[in-house]
Amino acid sequence: MAVEFAGVGASEGVAFGPAYVHLGGEVEPERTRIPEGSFDEELARFRAAVEAVAGRLRETGENLKGDIGEEEAAIFEVHAEMADDPELLEGVEERLRNLESPEAAVLAVGEEYAGGLAALEDEYLAARADDVRDVARQIAVEIMGGGAMGLEALRTPSVILARNLAPSDTARIPRGMALAFVTAGGSRTSHVSIMARSMGIPAVVGVGDALEAALNAGTVAVDGGAGVAVANPDPETLAAFEELRSRREEEQATLYEYRHVEARTADGRRIEVAANLGSASEAEGALEWGAEGVGLFRTEFLFMERDELPSEEEQYEAYSAVARAFGDRPVILRTLDVGGDKSLPGVDQPEEENPFLGWRGIRMSLEVPELFGPQLRAALRSAAHGNLKVMFPMVVDATEFRAAKRILGTCQEELEAEGVPTGPVEVGVMIETPAAALGAAELAREAAFFSIGTNDLVQYTLAADRGNEKLRHLQSADHPAVLKLIKMTCDAAGTAGIPVGVCGEAAGEPAMIPRLVELGVTELSMGAPAIPRAKQVVSGI
Amino acid sequence: MAVEFAGVGASEGVAFGPAYVHLGGEVEPERTRIPEGSFDEELARFRAAVEAVAGRLRETGENLKGDIGEEEAAIFEVHAEMADDPELLEGVEERLRNLESPEAAVLAVGEEYAGGLAALEDEYLAARADDVRDVARQIAVEIMGGGAMGLEALRTPSVILARNLAPSDTARIPRGMALAFVTAGGSRTSHVSIMARSMGIPAVVGVGDALEAALNAGTVAVDGGAGVAVANPDPETLAAFEELRSRREEEQATLYEYRHVEARTADGRRIEVAANLGSASEAEGALEWGAEGVGLFRTEFLFMERDELPSEEEQYEAYSAVARAFGDRPVILRTLDVGGDKSLPGVDQPEEENPFLGWRGIRMSLEVPELFGPQLRAALRSAAHGNLKVMFPMVVDATEFRAAKRILGTCQEELEAEGVPTGPVEVGVMIETPAAALGAAELAREAAFFSIGTNDLVQYTLAADRGNEKLRHLQSADHPAVLKLIKMTCDAAGTAGIPVGVCGEAAGEPAMIPRLVELGVTELSMGAPAIPRAKQVVSGI
Repeated sequence: MAVEFAGVGASEGVAFGPAYVHLGGEVEPERTRIPEGSFDEELARFRAAVEAVAGRLRETGENLKGDIGEEEAAIFEVHAEMADDPELLEGVEERLRNLESPEAAVLAVGEEYAGGLAALEDEYLAARADDVRDVARQIAVEIMGGGAMGLEALRTPSVILARNLAPSDTARIPRGMALAFVTAGGSRTSHVSIMARSMGIPAVVGVGDALEAALNAGTVAVDGGAGVAVANPDPETLAAFEELRSRREEEQATLYEYRHVEARTADGRRIEVAANLGSASEAEGALEWGAEGVGLFRTEFLFMERDELPSEEEQYEAYSAVARAFGDRPVILRTLDVGGDKSLPGVDQPEEENPFLGWRGIRMSLEVPELFGPQLRAALRSAAHGNLKVMFPMVVDATEFRAAKRILGTCQEELEAEGVPTGPVEVGVMIETPAAALGAAELAREAAFFSIGTNDLVQYTLAADRGNEKLRHLQSADHPAVLKLIKMTCDAAGTAGIPVGVCGEAAGEPAMIPRLVELGVTELSMGAPAIPRAKQVVSGI
Repeated sequence: MAVEFAGVGASEGVAFGPAYVHLGGEVEPERTRIPEGSFDEELARFRAAVEAVAGRLRETGENLKGDIGEEEAAIFEVHAEMADDPELLEGVEERLRNLESPEAAVLAVGEEYAGGLAALEDEYLAARADDVRDVARQIAVEIMGGGAMGLEALRTPSVILARNLAPSDTARIPRGMALAFVTAGGSRTSHVSIMARSMGIPAVVGVGDALEAALNAGTVAVDGGAGVAVANPDPETLAAFEELRSRREEEQATLYEYRHVEARTADGRRIEVAANLGSASEAEGALEWGAEGVGLFRTEFLFMERDELPSEEEQYEAYSAVARAFGDRPVILRTLDVGGDKSLPGVDQPEEENPFLGWRGIRMSLEVPELFGPQLRAALRSAAHGNLKVMFPMVVDATEFRAAKRILGTCQEELEAEGVPTGPVEVGVMIETPAAALGAAELAREAAFFSIGTNDLVQYTLAADRGNEKLRHLQSADHPAVLKLIKMTCDAAGTAGIPVGVCGEAAGEPAMIPRLVELGVTELSMGAPAIPRAKQVVSGI
């Protein structure tokens, strides 16, 4: 029976295909006990399952190297090692002797390990608890004859149904295998939504308990723009989706024409439309979508899941590659913004109860010279190869901004003294705390440009975590209080004669673009696939 | 040798006395192994220690019932049960057989349990992990001959030295036994500081690593106002502190005269000085300090550490007692504001990564009728016995405020239909999100009064968790951005002709009071012991 369910349209596009259910923590053992005398047989079964899972994990890691990068792929090797860990074998053996079933045993031992890890003080190890659970589940499913489990084993392009999808989940999906995402949790600004938009995959999130009804579906059709999905669609529905899809494709083709247009409003205001980059490898794709620059080049990708901080050289390579790719077009590099929810090698981070209100961004950079120095030096050197600018995140006032600029100046002097080539670097402020917006007039006298991070600005102004599902109604830049802060920022920028961009989700939302332009925004930066539509919207203002 | 160390002056006053070091998680076993053949002896030793610790915990609970309330005292019975849990005994026995020392064994088994608990999905049980560790530590210390351990065993008035003091720690200190607090962590707005001020106990917090040098001190002298402590003071230093103390006592006597003054600025503006109450039992004390009302009556105390939500009747008793105690003087009751960091019985709270940006305050109340209804009904009924007002926390705009007022109206109608007596209740808004301050003009048309919660307003405006030690420099209401929001709020209130109070820490800070009054604040509400000083400061403006 067809079941329609509605959620938040998180990423546009129409798709349909077989359902793939990713439940994460929901594996139940088929049997809890095994008959007397079956120890040897069941142990062999367990061992075979371990071998299959570990082998599959290793293979997936190898295959994905090109798609998701060496670092991310290495995680699969770590998981494979967890699967054939001798202690896991020992623990399961002991339980088998007590006639516990191997699937129940591996889940229980996995849970024991995970509990122990979760209790550890080392944040990195504690974060591995979920990985252990995940591996134990894969083995249990393998024992029960489930075969390949886990998103990395997906070999048929499918609509992915899940309660939630974490960054580690989406990273595991082989390229081309996700036709669409449908999740019970999430909001427009949660990770899966951002991912979906940047990959151009349709997504409906936040469908809530309605998802349960779809878990046994064979086929699912998704309209990401409308925020609607249909499980087991009947032929008429499917035909309607098919028609919708071809209409969308036509629209997309029209939109495609806008890729390399210079966006200008009817009254002649030129609005620069740029891309947000999550890593250096996204630069070429962004240019194809028509990016006129990079409004937000996030640098976190170089710092995650590592044993030590990236060297100046490694950063220089990544930053200069993007600067080169964009040539004269501006690339705004945001210095590191990581809080206590992610661990940085070699940095003594406090455990934070509210990492979004934590020691992060410029706060951390100003206090950790071994972090900030190499990053700024790499940026200054990369500026020799293009039009690179630097901006600082989480700034609250001019005092902080000046302190950061002083350090940049020192780095510049050092490099000159060393005879290392650098390029001129304009320095701007990310306006994402209410304090920065309220103090924009003073900041505008010190900064070469502003970039409004609407996601964070919304979450601080409305005191609502953007990842919190219960607060979805408080997650729009359209709120009068947020618009007031954006206006203050634009007015201050206008008076000082500096450009002001928006690099939050709002910059790519067709409904928000006219408002932002009206308030005085001069640049919009977004996930690259949204660029043609944004150019079209601007041209229609 | 005398060692002086400086921190944040969190609560005024001078004190000196013996040092009591509370280290929490820092017990090291003396021996890791025991000799062959000593099993019986060591097991007996372990059992005796358990008996001593459990007995002491039960006794403490009994003794404290009057001081800290039945509910809080019951926690000690729970801890005693943890101490004589048969599984703990079993686990330790097994390790003793392997010649592990009993002190090492109990710490290890305690840690195993705690790890298991911490991994549980039930938040209440997970939060018990620290309790288990604490009990295991007490047993280990007892085995090593340390005797009574833990703050509840304090029998000599002492200066408490600690890395950090949690709410559960301060609750365990028998009344009169804390002369002063000195902590390595913490800021002016962390729990221990708020507690210290409301109990009138001198406190220096955030002394950092300097604390280590004082851990072996015999005597410690503390000047809470100056934020200075001296370990092992020499006779001259001690004499200087003694003189300081008598001078402060004289000042205090002068201040005391201000208790019942009606505070008025030199140009005749009347400023109401009121108390913040954390529970109904604080009402009498607040009146003695000269409270002209209650600017913030927190209601969380009724909801914590319970198996079910408090009934309307129970709430009615607590609220009406305070209303009665204050007679004609206004009592502003704040409806419940609890986030995902504290668990509420019977409410399906999400796990929150950033509870300060979470589903709390009015957001939760509007969605949980069984929570909001009884609280509002109890408030309306209590208003028959005094001058009770209601305000809503975490409001971001007039839409939310109107929704809450509608529910209050429904409760009023219900009570009238039931023939239950009620009193008139004015309804106000807590201004603590940047959005509420930015939207104050609209809110002022709907509200009978404003109350600015500066602690939260600061933390959202500057995006800085007030409990995060690394961000102490971002925790002052004195920041220009915060002052701008306070001014917007006061201007809106002035235009609408409604009163505007401040109930955050800033209201009690002598340096902030003149600025707040200048901005247009008409009421100041604070921990009761700060009232005389505030009245003196206002009278000097």
